Amino acid sequence: MERAKDNFEKEGKEIYKLIERLYPICRSITGDGVRETLDIIKKIIPIDIKEVPTGTKVFDWTVPREWNIKDAYIKNSKGEKIVDFKKTNLHVLNYSIPINKKMNLKELKQHLFTIPKHPDWIPYRTTYYKENWGFCLTHNQFKKLKEDTYHVVIDSTLEKGHLSYGELYLKGKNKDEVLISTYLCHPSLCNDNLSGVGLTVYVALLLKQMDLKYSYRFLFIPETIGSITWLSRNEDKIPNIKHGLVVTCVGDRGDLTYKKSRKGNAAIDIIVEKVLTDSGDKYRTIDFFPLGSDERQYSSPGFDLPVGSLMRSFYYDYPEYHTSADNLEFMSSKHLGDSLKKYIRVINIIEGNETYINLNPKCEPQLGKRGIYDMIGGEKTVDLTAAVLWILNLSDGNNSLLDISIRSKMNFEQIKNAADILISKKLIIPKDG
Amino acid sequence: MERAKDNFEKEGKEIYKLIERLYPICRSITGDGVRETLDIIKKIIPIDIKEVPTGTKVFDWTVPREWNIKDAYIKNSKGEKIVDFKKTNLHVLNYSIPINKKMNLKELKQHLFTIPKHPDWIPYRTTYYKENWGFCLTHNQFKKLKEDTYHVVIDSTLEKGHLSYGELYLKGKNKDEVLISTYLCHPSLCNDNLSGVGLTVYVALLLKQMDLKYSYRFLFIPETIGSITWLSRNEDKIPNIKHGLVVTCVGDRGDLTYKKSRKGNAAIDIIVEKVLTDSGDKYRTIDFFPLGSDERQYSSPGFDLPVGSLMRSFYYDYPEYHTSADNLEFMSSKHLGDSLKKYIRVINIIEGNETYINLNPKCEPQLGKRGIYDMIGGEKTVDLTAAVLWILNLSDGNNSLLDISIRSKMNFEQIKNAADILISKKLIIPKDG
Amino acid sequence: MERAKDNFEKEGKEIYKLIERLYPICRSITGDGVRETLDIIKKIIPIDIKEVPTGTKVFDWTVPREWNIKDAYIKNSKGEKIVDFKKTNLHVLNYSIPINKKMNLKELKQHLFTIPKHPDWIPYRTTYYKENWGFCLTHNQFKKLKEDTYHVVIDSTLEKGHLSYGELYLKGKNKDEVLISTYLCHPSLCNDNLSGVGLTVYVALLLKQMDLKYSYRFLFIPETIGSITWLSRNEDKIPNIKHGLVVTCVGDRGDLTYKKSRKGNAAIDIIVEKVLTDSGDKYRTIDFFPLGSDERQYSSPGFDLPVGSLMRSFYYDYPEYHTSADNLEFMSSKHLGDSLKKYIRVINIIEGNETYINLNPKCEPQLGKRGIYDMIGGEKTVDLTAAVLWILNLSDGNNSLLDISIRSKMNFEQIKNAADILISKKLIIPKDG
Repeated sequence: MERAKDNFEKEGKEIYKLIERLYPICRSITGDGVRETLDIIKKIIPIDIKEVPTGTKVFDWTVPREWNIKDAYIKNSKGEKIVDFKKTNLHVLNYSIPINKKMNLKELKQHLFTIPKHPDWIPYRTTYYKENWGFCLTHNQFKKLKEDTYHVVIDSTLEKGHLSYGELYLKGKNKDEVLISTYLCHPSLCNDNLSGVGLTVYVALLLKQMDLKYSYRFLFIPETIGSITWLSRNEDKIPNIKHGLVVTCVGDRGDLTYKKSRKGNAAIDIIVEKVLTDSGDKYRTIDFFPLGSDERQYSSPGFDLPVGSLMRSFYYDYPEYHTSADNLEFMSSKHLGDSLKKYIRVINIIEGNETYINLNPKCEPQLGKRGIYDMIGGEKTVDLTAAVLWILNLSDGNNSLLDISIRSKMNFEQIKNAADILISKKLIIPKDG
Repeated sequence: MERAKDNFEKEGKEIYKLIERLYPICRSITGDGVRETLDIIKKIIPIDIKEVPTGTKVFDWTVPREWNIKDAYIKNSKGEKIVDFKKTNLHVLNYSIPINKKMNLKELKQHLFTIPKHPDWIPYRTTYYKENWGFCLTHNQFKKLKEDTYHVVIDSTLEKGHLSYGELYLKGKNKDEVLISTYLCHPSLCNDNLSGVGLTVYVALLLKQMDLKYSYRFLFIPETIGSITWLSRNEDKIPNIKHGLVVTCVGDRGDLTYKKSRKGNAAIDIIVEKVLTDSGDKYRTIDFFPLGSDERQYSSPGFDLPVGSLMRSFYYDYPEYHTSADNLEFMSSKHLGDSLKKYIRVINIIEGNETYINLNPKCEPQLGKRGIYDMIGGEKTVDLTAAVLWILNLSDGNNSLLDISIRSKMNFEQIKNAADILISKKLIIPKDG
Repeated sequence: MERAKDNFEKEGKEIYKLIERLYPICRSITGDGVRETLDIIKKIIPIDIKEVPTGTKVFDWTVPREWNIKDAYIKNSKGEKIVDFKKTNLHVLNYSIPINKKMNLKELKQHLFTIPKHPDWIPYRTTYYKENWGFCLTHNQFKKLKEDTYHVVIDSTLEKGHLSYGELYLKGKNKDEVLISTYLCHPSLCNDNLSGVGLTVYVALLLKQMDLKYSYRFLFIPETIGSITWLSRNEDKIPNIKHGLVVTCVGDRGDLTYKKSRKGNAAIDIIVEKVLTDSGDKYRTIDFFPLGSDERQYSSPGFDLPVGSLMRSFYYDYPEYHTSADNLEFMSSKHLGDSLKKYIRVINIIEGNETYINLNPKCEPQLGKRGIYDMIGGEKTVDLTAAVLWILNLSDGNNSLLDISIRSKMNFEQIKNAADILISKKLIIPKDG
């Protein structure tokens, strides 16, 4: 894919625009906000939208009721809306039960959430599996509250309905597949995780135009319950999954971070780290741990899928995480484009890696007579010659191009290009026919 | 064992008192000093006292004659005792043959040992396997010696008798056993190794009150010849030994030092290092080497037992080693207590480690409905949740709680406590029934 | 070989003298220069000189025509020789076709090679596999060239003939063999590689006087085509080769550098690194890469021989490489001797390494009664005791003396000496009879 060399600036800007459009929608793990988001995605890539009924058993869990909300506010005794869902959906404790009640400050305070350390930010909080209601507000707002009679209204519904998710399957030459999973249950938060949604859309869009060796499956799901639901309904497909990535927090200005798969040395781990090393950019890797996002489910011991997660700033490290400060300004289209580039490079290795056999294994073949390099000897050998000699030397059937690029410390693309020359000169052939 | 969390201050003081009582006794590899020491131990824990006759073949060695001593001194021509065994038994070259002879300074000097670098300290020297006699004195004493006729008396006996040692076997549920070995042949030296004797007594005393999974064998032996003798008489028991520690130098104020087993990565090595890491205290590890104490014999290639040695200051590193400066002041009851704590924690892991199977291996079980954690989402997960998720994720039958605590970098006790909760919720069961 | 302890100063001087004699000869991959060089070597060690006819197929290659040269120069229009082969053979592009032609400066310049960065040095350049002619000169000479009519003469021949190389086989007790390969195709260059030729001659000379366990094969060949030719004619011998070294650049004043074999952890890699560690000298190791010298061919995937290369300064790192500055002054006899010492120590380990069995595997044997160490106990153990105990402890059949010397961090020679004592005391015997 020749695109791998540019910086995907155009796509970065398009992803940013998509995020701007998705930002105001109030999403949760179920409900119309998710459906509206999926409909917008479907206009760009041909996802299937799946609806799983409330009450469906999914392993140890049950698909929950559908949550929808029209309005919510707190009024003081003067009738002034002092907290208003219409200003930002983060003001409501996500998945709150309906309420319409007057109460004093003491009672109200038991349902208010703030971040004292960042008094201008609104926290993002949820109550999925425990019936409750509440409001999230800035600590500055909170400090101004006086003794009063407050009128609290949450005009939400919790009813039988469906859990909605999107799925796109791109069929490649092989049934072996790559899982690209992202979550769309968060309301007005950008980096976590509209950035992941947007980037995944564009990975799919680019791959749709390619002849693919692997098949690719893209999931747009609510976090945790979505991956559990998908896994419970698709156990037959699980053996096909050879590599996977959870896409999250890919839009901020931080360096890239790779959270390894549970195995720690799966092919995906080696590939992503090679992409990051080749890039020359600063990056860090984090060993797998069983908190985080949907890799928790993909990596549960009954599946143990090789699924990592490639992000920019590590979610537990940046203070804006799960607050109103994770907004459009927190991201940049340039960094979205750069993240996309890294994902595409990962896919380029997945697609382009192969093991070859040197057809002249005894001593080097005479490259000069085949016009491969400058035949004036005695000069320092250039990179292409080095790449050619590395491939010839290591193509004994035990080393893939990726292995060779790692051992030689050369970029995968340099090795891949040299391999293409050697194939054309009939000096190497694929191990598997 | 809930005691693991305190600092064993009370026991530290009791060990110190026991050492004070044992300190003046003149011990050697055989003789009444050893018997007197064993008799005092027997008043605290029910050891068996074994007597092995002189001349018994023990592998390549022979049980030596019994050495006993009543008195020893050097008198000058004025009849003044210038070196006197009654002041400290270190003055006599341990295992000296009897002598009663007048001689000039030149002859005498061939039998005197000092430490020029520490002119106030008396060295501790022995002559077990070569007939000789001698006196150890401070270098300051030595420098004052003038030409004179000296009367040298060592009123010792070397006669057929027995080699004495103590043994205590605590039977646990399994016949697999843990060997705790310490040596008691040194005379008036504290850290090396009355500290080891005292600590071992108290480990035994604490374990005697517990329901044990493993069986424990405590040995109080003379160094080298004692372990050789025990091994030669107990070859049938050797296959049962799964873990072992040689207890030495555990009373000084230095940081803990762990000398690994010959294997280097035996379970005992991993367990001790985990205890030390969990403690947060400074420590160091030393790879096995075939010098040192009785681990030399336990680790000989015909046995290769997984026996390490957990001490405080490494014996070859502190200048007081094998000198009169290794006295009561050189130790502290606080550090004896701390050493005991570490030994008990090692035993807590040996006893508490187990491999479990997650009964819900496909995706996470829904912890919320089981009341395991606060159901308000969105907050940073606390340690208990992390421990629970680590156990669930890794309990695929390949990882023990110890493995999990190491991979998660959590304390073994945190993991063990979380496992107990999961057992009670029927989410995990022991792998072996 | 007791010689291992000296610094081989005498041999260093003799090697230097041999290089002085070989320096002026104009060598190439074929021709009389190679023959003259081999004839001089044959006066010191009894090599066989092999002649392989032009046109012989050797794997993917063909033995080239023989190149010989009588004279070469560039004359200006005044008839002055401004570049003269008689001053140094580096002036001619090695393997140039004959030419006798007048031309202007522009045409001439297409055949001139210089080093702008080092304007006083003449580069060394070749044109083995592409018909061409040319001259190499200093950049200062080049800058003085003015528009003129130049008379260019290269009185060379390229005719059917032979490729010549030298081979010496020293038969040891085993048919397992050690390959020591060096190349002699370079003309007036010293470190690269008359130093290698000279050192190899003296390794062979010293080994010829020894009773050898391994057989040794010494090759004096033109680089690349020589090793390809030898391999293609000797495939039956390849399975015998257990260790190998390519000897190059061993005369300069730099620290030693070891380029590892393709396997990276072959016995030769471990042995050479142990020799370098034991020496206490600064050194560095370089992982295998498929450029460099004849190890490229020995390590091709069809052979994958365990062949490393022990040199001083790494050839790609020093600016004098492949220039007229790689002359006699660039080397020192002291460093040639030191390199020889290291090669001999490598051979001492190859010859002296053995796995033994401790005949008293249960506990230590009683060393005192066998007179092995000072029987006064209590002192710090000296090195010999440590070596003895390490050997006894690890001689369970799984550890060679080399393994023991590495694990104990003791010099191989200390361990070897201690092993000889234990053999004499019948405490250990060779594993293989």
